[in-house]
Amino acid sequence: MNGFNTEQLFGTLDAIKETPEIAKFQFRANNKWISGGHNRSTIKGFYGGCQEDISRNKSFVFDNSEPPILLGNNEGANPVEFVLHALAGCMTTTMMLYASTHGIEVESVESKLEGDLDVQGFLGLDKTVRNGYQNIGISFKIEGNLSDVQKQELLQFTNNSPVFDIVTNKVPVNFSLQQD
Amino acid sequence: MNGFNTEQLFGTLDAIKETPEIAKFQFRANNKWISGGHNRSTIKGFYGGCQEDISRNKSFVFDNSEPPILLGNNEGANPVEFVLHALAGCMTTTMMLYASTHGIEVESVESKLEGDLDVQGFLGLDKTVRNGYQNIGISFKIEGNLSDVQKQELLQFTNNSPVFDIVTNKVPVNFSLQQD
Repeated sequence: MNGFNTEQLFGTLDAIKETPEIAKFQFRANNKWISGGHNRSTIKGFYGGCQEDISRNKSFVFDNSEPPILLGNNEGANPVEFVLHALAGCMTTTMMLYASTHGIEVESVESKLEGDLDVQGFLGLDKTVRNGYQNIGISFKIEGNLSDVQKQELLQFTNNSPVFDIVTNKVPVNFSLQQD
Repeated sequence: MNGFNTEQLFGTLDAIKETPEIAKFQFRANNKWISGGHNRSTIKGFYGGCQEDISRNKSFVFDNSEPPILLGNNEGANPVEFVLHALAGCMTTTMMLYASTHGIEVESVESKLEGDLDVQGFLGLDKTVRNGYQNIGISFKIEGNLSDVQKQELLQFTNNSPVFDIVTNKVPVNFSLQQD
């Protein structure tokens, strides 16, 4: 349903109920500075289901950069745009996963996101302005044989999204220098 | 310095001090569900410097997906991995921007990130477990003709990063259905 193998989905839920340890994941990324505001991440391995994952034959590679107005040459989207991408994707996947476990079939989902950011904060020019997004708006267009009540239910499912939690709540970030 | 045009950099800082309005940005993304945990974002236009940006000839396109253990086929990195990519890139760019305004020349920067996530929260199997990352670790390897004090200073610069703020603090996210 909705592109999920529901037999596998319910099987996974049962397996986690029996052995909660398999629910613990560690995701990873490596990043390397190239020049100015341009840098590159490689993403491949992760831990989950009590083992190192070996399903990926090659790494995902993504470049962060900046547009000219932010002193770059558009070698990639910028980091705060990647946050919008992650948020949209996670809220959508969460909606569709919950839709599938609740037996709601959906035809199409699209979303538009807008994030407001005043760079005076980040540049240290005005300490009263926060460094990150002041707010993010996301609007969904959901289509299918669905009542208004079901569409509202689908919308509420998105709040279980991990990235929604990461963005709307606080995550501790420990930063350090690697020892030589 | 460090790949930044410092004349342009200081010019930008002066321009914002004179006209704070140009510091207001709105970044955007559009996302479309494909199937199951697979969806695609397109990112192109944004508002900043008191106008719509026209520097990008084509959109950036990124796919979110999941590995088999999370019911996908690795059509893309997953959303929480994109968060690590965004965080690494933003902290690195911020470090290098501040290094440049402080006259510190750096040869290379690499970082490794790890994020711990227990999917029992997200799946609604254990309400005591949060849905997003429980914590994120990021370690930097910085090289150049630098003292230990300077390396620590560079490390502290990363805390001004917009994505660091977004992840470690709360951002309000307004979600809604598009009206037909």
